[in-house]
Parts: sequence; C-alpha cells; structure tokens
Amino acid sequence: MIMKVWQLLALVTLTLFSCVEVEVEAEEEVSTRAWQLTHPLDPLSQQELTLVQTTVLNKYPTATNTVFFHYVGLQDPDKATLLKSLSSPRSHSQPPRTAFVIAIINSQTHQLTVNLQLPNVVLSDTLHRGTGFPTLTVEEQTEAIALPLKYGPFLESVKKRGLNVSEVVCSSFTVGWYGQTERGRRVLRIECFLKNGTANIYVRPINGIVILADIDRMEIVVYRDNAVEPVPKAENTEYRASHLKPPFSPRLHSYAFHQPQGPGFTIRGHTLSWANWKFHIGYDVRAGVVISTASIYDPEVHKSRSVLYRGYISELFVPYQDPTEEWYYKTFFDAGEFGFGQSMVSLEPLHDCPPHAQFLDVYFAGRDGTPQHLKNAICVFEKYGGISWRHTETGIPNEEIREVRSDVSLIVRSVVTVGNYDNVIDWEFKPSGSIKPAISLSGMLEIKAVDITHKDQIKGDQHGTLVSENSIGVYHDHYYIYHLDFDIDGVDNSFVKTNLKTVQVTDNSSKRKSYWTTSSEVVKSESDAKIKLGLSPCELAVVNPSKKTSTGNEVGYRLIPNAAAHPLLTEDDYPQRRGAFTNYNVWVTPYNKTQKWAGGLYVDQSRGDDTLAVWTKQNRSIENKDIVLWYVVGIHHVPCQEDFPIMPLLSTEFELRPTNFFERNPVLKTLSPGIVKWPGCGKP
Amino acid sequence: MIMKVWQLLALVTLTLFSCVEVEVEAEEEVSTRAWQLTHPLDPLSQQELTLVQTTVLNKYPTATNTVFFHYVGLQDPDKATLLKSLSSPRSHSQPPRTAFVIAIINSQTHQLTVNLQLPNVVLSDTLHRGTGFPTLTVEEQTEAIALPLKYGPFLESVKKRGLNVSEVVCSSFTVGWYGQTERGRRVLRIECFLKNGTANIYVRPINGIVILADIDRMEIVVYRDNAVEPVPKAENTEYRASHLKPPFSPRLHSYAFHQPQGPGFTIRGHTLSWANWKFHIGYDVRAGVVISTASIYDPEVHKSRSVLYRGYISELFVPYQDPTEEWYYKTFFDAGEFGFGQSMVSLEPLHDCPPHAQFLDVYFAGRDGTPQHLKNAICVFEKYGGISWRHTETGIPNEEIREVRSDVSLIVRSVVTVGNYDNVIDWEFKPSGSIKPAISLSGMLEIKAVDITHKDQIKGDQHGTLVSENSIGVYHDHYYIYHLDFDIDGVDNSFVKTNLKTVQVTDNSSKRKSYWTTSSEVVKSESDAKIKLGLSPCELAVVNPSKKTSTGNEVGYRLIPNAAAHPLLTEDDYPQRRGAFTNYNVWVTPYNKTQKWAGGLYVDQSRGDDTLAVWTKQNRSIENKDIVLWYVVGIHHVPCQEDFPIMPLLSTEFELRPTNFFERNPVLKTLSPGIVKWPGCGKP
Repeated sequence: MIMKVWQLLALVTLTLFSCVEVEVEAEEEVSTRAWQLTHPLDPLSQQELTLVQTTVLNKYPTATNTVFFHYVGLQDPDKATLLKSLSSPRSHSQPPRTAFVIAIINSQTHQLTVNLQLPNVVLSDTLHRGTGFPTLTVEEQTEAIALPLKYGPFLESVKKRGLNVSEVVCSSFTVGWYGQTERGRRVLRIECFLKNGTANIYVRPINGIVILADIDRMEIVVYRDNAVEPVPKAENTEYRASHLKPPFSPRLHSYAFHQPQGPGFTIRGHTLSWANWKFHIGYDVRAGVVISTASIYDPEVHKSRSVLYRGYISELFVPYQDPTEEWYYKTFFDAGEFGFGQSMVSLEPLHDCPPHAQFLDVYFAGRDGTPQHLKNAICVFEKYGGISWRHTETGIPNEEIREVRSDVSLIVRSVVTVGNYDNVIDWEFKPSGSIKPAISLSGMLEIKAVDITHKDQIKGDQHGTLVSENSIGVYHDHYYIYHLDFDIDGVDNSFVKTNLKTVQVTDNSSKRKSYWTTSSEVVKSESDAKIKLGLSPCELAVVNPSKKTSTGNEVGYRLIPNAAAHPLLTEDDYPQRRGAFTNYNVWVTPYNKTQKWAGGLYVDQSRGDDTLAVWTKQNRSIENKDIVLWYVVGIHHVPCQEDFPIMPLLSTEFELRPTNFFERNPVLKTLSPGIVKWPGCGKP
Repeated sequence: MIMKVWQLLALVTLTLFSCVEVEVEAEEEVSTRAWQLTHPLDPLSQQELTLVQTTVLNKYPTATNTVFFHYVGLQDPDKATLLKSLSSPRSHSQPPRTAFVIAIINSQTHQLTVNLQLPNVVLSDTLHRGTGFPTLTVEEQTEAIALPLKYGPFLESVKKRGLNVSEVVCSSFTVGWYGQTERGRRVLRIECFLKNGTANIYVRPINGIVILADIDRMEIVVYRDNAVEPVPKAENTEYRASHLKPPFSPRLHSYAFHQPQGPGFTIRGHTLSWANWKFHIGYDVRAGVVISTASIYDPEVHKSRSVLYRGYISELFVPYQDPTEEWYYKTFFDAGEFGFGQSMVSLEPLHDCPPHAQFLDVYFAGRDGTPQHLKNAICVFEKYGGISWRHTETGIPNEEIREVRSDVSLIVRSVVTVGNYDNVIDWEFKPSGSIKPAISLSGMLEIKAVDITHKDQIKGDQHGTLVSENSIGVYHDHYYIYHLDFDIDGVDNSFVKTNLKTVQVTDNSSKRKSYWTTSSEVVKSESDAKIKLGLSPCELAVVNPSKKTSTGNEVGYRLIPNAAAHPLLTEDDYPQRRGAFTNYNVWVTPYNKTQKWAGGLYVDQSRGDDTLAVWTKQNRSIENKDIVLWYVVGIHHVPCQEDFPIMPLLSTEFELRPTNFFERNPVLKTLSPGIVKWPGCGKP
C-alpha cells in the first residue's frame, strides 16, 4: 500500500515541470527511479491534497458540518529521521509522511494531522482555543469584497458621490488588534476603488467610508460614510501597454540567449543539482518557496557538505504610518494573514524570468480542500556575465599574468503579490558557496485620497507623500524575516559574534596610535543573540565547533547584512507587539519544529503572545546545538512620485558567505563557462 | 589653427574603440561631425600627451634638467563655460583646453598648466612647497624593486635563508606619515617574495627584513634583517589554470548571447547614448573612470535633464591593522599614491566583460612624458534578465491582469589592480533613472609569514586570520570615497535630510500608540552635512529647490546606501588624520575646482592638511548652490580561508535613485526588449 502511494507521488512530481526535456527524461526513469524521484520534503501533491480533503470530510461530512480549509501543508518530518533517510536513500526508512491541517469546522478552529500514506486516517484533531485566527482563504475574501455591492447604504454612498457602482471594485484588509480583550470575531475591513479608466484600482480609492464585514456570518456589521473625498483621477494611472498610447520609450534592443548544452542544472522531483550545489525546492501555502537540505560539494574532501537545512521567509510585516480612523489598522502580516505561498502568482515566461528559465508549478488546497493549481509558480535559471575572481599580476618582471574566471550563478525566483504589492523573491546560489537572498519590491502604493492637489495646500501631517493630485502615498515599512536553519557540516552549530574593536597604543611600542583587532564570543543563549545591526562593528557567523580546518579555524558561514532598519513604533504599541520579531535584526533560537512562524501560528488579530520575541524569553541555550538564525530585512518606505502609478523595482539583498568553511577558495579550479559564438547555432 | 587641432582630436578619439562597427560608422561621419565627436572633457589624447611632453621639455630640456612627469591630466574647464558650450554645441565657444601637470624637475615638485591648443605654451609653472609628494610613477617603482637584488646585505639575507635570489621578486610600498616634522625624502618600503612554484608572490613573503629605498637617489637607505621567518609554502597557492592539475570543477555550461540589432548604445568620441541616458565616459590617470554630464530624457517634458555633472572615486584608503615594525606603516591611499587610473589593467574580453561588450582604450603619460597606451581599459555592455516593474492584478472580478517589463541596464566597467588587490569598478545605469555604482574586490590578501601552522599555536594577537600554514591574512579596511557632483536639473542644488521619527499618540486620537513621520531639513552648511550613517533613520537627497513637480515636490535624487562602516582608528592617529575623509560616511561641499581629491593633492607622506575634513572646517554654505556629495563605501576585512590563495569577488553597491525627479515612473511606457528565439539567428 505505502509502496503504491510513493510510486504515485513519483509520477505526480514529474508533472511539476514545464520543461519538456526533463519530463521526458524523467518519465523514462520512473519505473527504476521512483524512490529517488521523491523527497520527504516534497510539498503535498495534487493527489495528497485530495487525500487530505477526503480524509477530513470523511470525519466531518459536509452534509452535517461546515468545513473550511485554511491551511494544508506538510507536517515537518522528524529532522533526525529525515536526515538519516537522506543519507541512506536506498534504505526505505522514509519518515512517515503527514499533513498538517488548520480548518474551521462549524466555526471552531481545528488543528489536524492526517496520514498521507493511508486514506481516511486522522492522526490527531485538536481545537485552537488561543488568540488569533487562521490564514484567510482566497474564497472568503472574494465573498467579502462582493458584500458592499449588494449593500443598500453603500450603494447610496456611491450614488451620493455620483459614481457608477458597476465601476466599483472592493478589496479586503485585515484589521489587526488594538488591545481589546474579548475574543472577537473574524472580521475584515473592506475598501472600495474605482476601476473606470484604469486597471490600477489602488490609486483610485473611494475614501471616507468605513466598512467592516464579519466573514463567518459573511455580512457587513459596521458601515459609516464619514466624508466625501475626491476620487483621484484615472489619468496617467494605467499601466497596461494595451491601454497606453504611443510613443513607448526608450527603445531597448532585443537579444538572444542560448545554452547549447542546455541548462547547467537538473531537477529530479523537487531536488535541484547544479555545479557544486544540491538542494530541495519546496513550497508551502504559507511560506511560499522553501529551500531545504542545501549542500555543496567540497573538492578537497570529495564530498558534499551540508550548509542550510531550511531557508524561507517566515513573515512579512507591513505597518502603515497613518493613525487616522481609515488607516490606523493597516499593519499587515502578509505571510500569516494572507499566505505568502497562497499569494504567489504565475510568472510570465521571458519577462519575469529569462528565456532559458525552467518553471515549476505548485498546488495548494482551496477553502473546500480541493487542490488548486498554480502554473509557472517558480522559475530557475542561470545568470551569466559576472566575474568569479580575477587578478592581473604586473609585479613579476618579464611575465604578464592575467587570470579571470567569469561567474555563473543560479537563481530560484518566485513572485508574491499581496494585493497592491509584488514581492520578487530570489535565492541566488554561487559556485563560490555564497547564497544571496534578494527581495525586490514592485506593484502599487496604497493611496489615500485627499482634497489636495499641490504641496502648498498641505496643512498638518498627511502621513505620506503627495505623489499625484489628490493622492497621498502613505508612509510604511516592509519587514521580511528569514528563517535560516543552518546545518554547517552537521546539525549542531554555534553562533559566533566577532567584535571589531579599537586598541590604543599607549606604550610607544608602535608608531601607530591605534589599530583594530577582533574578539570572538560564542553566543551562549537566545538573549545574547538578539542583535541590532549597525550600532557596533561585528561579524556574525554560524559555525560548527566540532569541525575545524587544517589550520584550526571553525568551519562556518557568515551573514553579510545590508543596511539595517529598526522599528520606529514604540515597543508597547499593539502592532509592534504583534510584529515584535522586528525589535532586533538578528535572532538565534534552538531548532524547534513548532516555532516556524516569527509572528505566530495564528496571526490574524493575533496579540503577540506567540512571536519570536516571546519564544526567546525562555533564553534557551544555543551553543553547539541545532540552531536557527532569523534575519530581518527592513525597508522604511517614504513614497515618491516615481513609485506612481506603478513602482520600478526597489531591491535589497544580503549574503550568506562561507567563512573558513573551505580550506581555500572553492572555485580556484573552476573554469569559466564556454562562450559560443553567434551564428554558431549548433553545439560548440 | 584651433580648428585643426579639434579635427585632429576628432580623428584621435575614434581610435579609442575596439568595436569595428562604431569605428567605421564614425569615420564616415568625421568630415561632417568632427565637432560632435569631441567633448571638452575628453581625456588627453595620445597627441595631446605628446604635446605636453614636448612643451614641458622645451622649457626644461633634458640635456640640462632631470624631468619626471608624475601627473598629466585635463585641467578642469570652467564649469559654467563648459555647460554653456555643451548647451549650444554649434557655437564654437569651446572652453580653452588645458593640461594640468605635476612634474618633479631637478628634485623640485612643479605644478604646470600647459595650453593644449598651441605648442610650447606653458601657462603657469609654480613650485609645490607644502607637505606630501606626488603620485608615484610606475617606472620609479620598477627601479626601486630591483634595488635589493643588487644589494649585498640582501643577497646575504637570501642566502642565509637558503633561498635562490633568481626566485626573488620585490614590491614597493608607500611609507605613510607618523608624526615626523622634518620634510623628509621620497622613500618607499620594499618587501620581497618568493615566486618559485607559484605566480602568487603575495602569499610567499620573505619576512623579517626591513628595506627602505630613497627613490630620488634610487638607493637603499635603511636595511635590517631582524628575524628569519619561514616562507609560506607554494603548495596550493597557484591560480593559473595552465599551472593547475585537473580535475577542474564544477563544470559550468557554455552559452551564446547575441543582439541582432547590435548593442543598444552608441559611443561618439567619449559620449555614450543609451536608452534615455546620455553621459561622457572620461579617464584620468589618478581617478580612473570619470562619468560626466550624465543626463536623462524625460518623456513628460520631451527633453534631457541633467543629473550628475561628475562622478568618480576620489580616493581609496586601505589601512592595515598590524602595529608591528614590518606592518604599522601599511596605510595605503591607492588613488593618491599609486594612481587609480595608472593602476587600471586591460580587461579580458569574454571574461572580465561579457561577449557583447565594447571596449575603450586609454592613454596616460609615462614618467618621461611619453604616452602610454592601455588597451581595453574600459568596457561597456548591457545587462539583461532582470525585472523593471511588474504587477499581477487578481482583485478585479473576471479580469486576469499581469503586466511585466523586463529590465535592461547599462554597465561601464573597469578594473584597478593595485599590487595584490583587484578592484572591479562598475557604474550601472537603469532606464528608471537609477545609477548603481558597485565595487567588487578580488585578487590576493597581503600575507604575513609566521612560524605558526595551527591556530592552537597562536599566542597573543596575530592581527589577522591564519588562512593557511605560516600565513596570516592581516586585518584591514577598504574605504572608497565617491565624488558625486550632482546637477539635478541645473547647477544649484540643496542637500535635504529627511528624518524619520516616532510620534507617540497620547491623546487617544487613535487606537495606535505610535507611528512614524518625516521631517525634512535643508542642510545649510558643511558641518551639518557630515553624517554617520546607521545611527538614526533618514533619507538623504540632493534636490533642486527651484524646480518642483506639478504637485510641488522638489525634484531630486536620493542616496540609498549600503551597510555603513565607520573608522576604528582614533581620530588623532596619523593614518586617520590623512584618511580623515572616512570620519563620516557622507559629506557635502560647495563645488570647488581645486577640491577633487578627498585625501589631498599630494598624498604620498601627506599629513592630513589638505583633506575633505580640513576643507569642510570652513563650514561653507551649501544651500541652493553647486554642491558635491561625497559618499564613503567602507569594508572592514577580516580575512578568511576562502580569500586564499585568491579571493572570490566580494561586492557592494549603492543606489542613486530619482526621487520626485520625474512626475511619475519614467519607464511606465518602456516596453520589454524583444527576445530572439534560437536558432533564429537572423534579425528578429
């Protein structure tokens, strides 16, 4: 029975690739390589999602129950068992494959675990009685935003404004938590926009109206029409080429790109092999893309060495900075409230990803448990044109030496679009061992309509920039927190902080009056690992204290951060309590299966009682243990007119760089990729 | 007469391109477009350098004088005259073209200006009597490093160590300044290395010996053999593929790249036009690549608008952090002491730059004034594969909207190799208006030989990392300071600091307890413009206070910095006084023709009396004036084993981003570049 399921899975995973070559190749191998073609961390397949649906509905038949699926994902296998099974793939000791489910059944929040290898086996079923609500479903938001269009008072408000309701589109927003003590209900704020003359609804808000909808009863429970604000003009807000008039400028020259040997990477199931790297590309409806079991081949020891057990974006906190009635509540948690994976969008071949990219599809459970298919959700491609290393030596008489290695890196890309914003999420891998996660922002600003057309008319704080007539781009932040579970050459690691400090020369032992040196401290506990970056110079590394180089340095990886952003809300403010994981830029915790979500498991209307900041109050030991490094990428966003009506990419990246992990430069003996001359269209 | 010279120049500039198409095209146009083909900021041509040589030697015949040229470059034309001439290219009102020369004539430092339009006209000739010496010439360093090999005591030291002098290579190092008050002489430290078994001399120092050479007398003036240190092994230090044994790994797949319409940019003389950008690519023997008169086309107003009058790296300060006798003095100023332009190296087609790059050559004066030719000194190419902007709209019922524009950017690249380090200097331009300067480090570490093979043997501070047996990679910093003379929509600009600050809600006017808002201050004077980044959240912009957008925002450009590094030497320490321009990350000064070099004009053995820190003590007004923004990019470098024997690129970049410069996203109507399918080798 189990065997059958695995073979089934094998076939399913094959369908995840849009690259024909891979499909064909793999299909040939199915019969013989079924086992290799699946991985214990593979996301739930279409069949598995269906299995979960039937299993749960078998226990709670819809004839007598209302059942809504809010989260269906893979229950993390026991890490030790998983690593053991991977190290001996031939032994059939796969960890049991289980689904974790959050469902609202008859208005109660259930946490269920479901066996994925046998039908109709619910392994556990408990109620969530704490604060906070599950991630929203797409379907309930769709129903909620339709409510105003059938709601009398709203129709009057529309009429009062001389607008045509057929041109009105609404959108839903989570309400956050502002100190109320009663349990509360699942509600959403609804705002409406005008779409005539543009597809860019976010820049045409119909402001002055407060709408609150109860999404369990699916009805409007609060409605206020406070003030009539002018709706910003549609003029100059359209972004679809099909709706723009020429001239289109500037002209960019076209190009052709080709890899005669095909791409340098291969994907089997969800496992990617490229150059010296091997890792698993997973997907979770809440986390989005998950990079797992990344290891790199070490030419010195002729084996692959583990680097990263798992990396993903655990939460994205976006607090807006307008305290007024219509805006104060806008403090969004895009992963926990809306689902980062659920908000992923299909990538556009040739434009979101270059011509030689390969694409992966993903599946997730809809509200009724039915598998939803997202095509081209992830792309993988190689990037050429950089330099790996170089030197020109002019210092040796009668020798002209120049050695240059051009670089190739591998990029795994996805785009998460939560309403107005598009987040381009890249994971870049380099043969040198570096991993460079990058985030790029595009999409639209959230606009507040005001009766102001020129800065001179502004009285008082408008809480944003007048980016166009009647349009305030409201101040806000973007805080992404990465979960980086390093396994540097093994599971047990330590976090080392190397401080750079000035030494003053007072004994005339040198002609210098000062110099700097380093002092490294192994960080013992969670409290000491909380770091605000930028205040004092230091290098941060995760090392394996039991693995040393031949010269005795501990093998490790270093975090090279970008400019740090610190929160500007007071720590006791409600949104900041919920987003307390931004209080520091870096945190380190012992690995804990249940601590995956820095803002908590139930984030909608959460009260900050299940955040990274709370977990770390235990001040657990993190020395020579399986540890997770959490890193916050923050952007304070003061909008400008260039962000309007749609924003050119704003990018930031950081680097995870091997530091005494290798005996020496691991690409010393890596040759540059060959270059095929045009029109040599054939093989080189 | 003048006319003739300009036509001559026109022809000369044509020879600067290795791209056949451009040459041909341009030659056809010479007769008609000679004027357009030259630019008042063009670097000195081969002919002009010869003119300078003959003019100076005509005044100081070598029969009776010793004449050494230490700097020959373009004397900055008067900015107003230059801008006027550019705005009306047809009027022949070119600013007079003059060379600035620093020469050591009969052991005295002369500053001369030479007319480049008439032969044998020395316009001025003054003596430099202050502190500091001119940039070193290549030739005198070559002579100096040969001295030990003919010096008895050194030969004995070599013998004593059982080494073969035929395998010894020496290198010269500037000595800095450590408080002595007497004028001193032009001297260099010399260190020697062993090259047998490797081309990587820097990792095989013959330590324990102190050599000081007087480079005017060209003789060794101090020699001490203090201690015999083991010379690190050659094993595993070679980096030339031709000298490495297989296997070479990992394998990277080859590729082909083609632009059927050719590159998207055109270069006339030194003036580049691409997409909406137009700028001048200059060269200076001290500064290296200089970007000038960069302007961008604004589709709203149908004209080009000025952004950057000039941008270049003014100085690079590299203080090492070992206070011992053999290392304390290593506090290098790579631009002022060695010449950033003089240290540029030929780029390797296909590897330093991608296949579709075009190359420019440069010329500079040798010590005797003879023009030196550096082939492929600069490359220009387009980078594809990114995203310019995107949005997927799922919020409008029954409409599936996805708009993505793929990005193309233009990169101007050069490599400056000062001894062991290779600095890859990129200027990236985007159609969105962003300029992204990037610096990448490669090359070798400076190694200190020690009698230590394992970390366990280390006693006391070794001032570095044991990167290999007997090899300490010494701690050091890299501080690059950019001179960014913005002319945002005109010459007179202001520097605006926008502070982000928390506002606490105490009157229950909101359910929020806090939010942040901004307060902008126009920075009035140099003192207030000195900024240490990372201490408080702010946005920094250069704006034109007399040009506003339709909604009343001042047009400007914003500096988006990377993680900031602050100096760790005490401010009164001698090297820090010389490198005082690193005391802050950002400085703003009024434009001043004579204040080009942040470390001073005469940096070798300088005493810090002519640095940016000294100039700004005048605390001049910078409001609504022609201002220069100086930005320091700093890297604290704690070496690791991966940096050995040659270092994979370590990169950092920052962004100059239009902020309310345009009415709206300037690439809203820019279409993605076409993609030509393989094997469609023909035109699209």
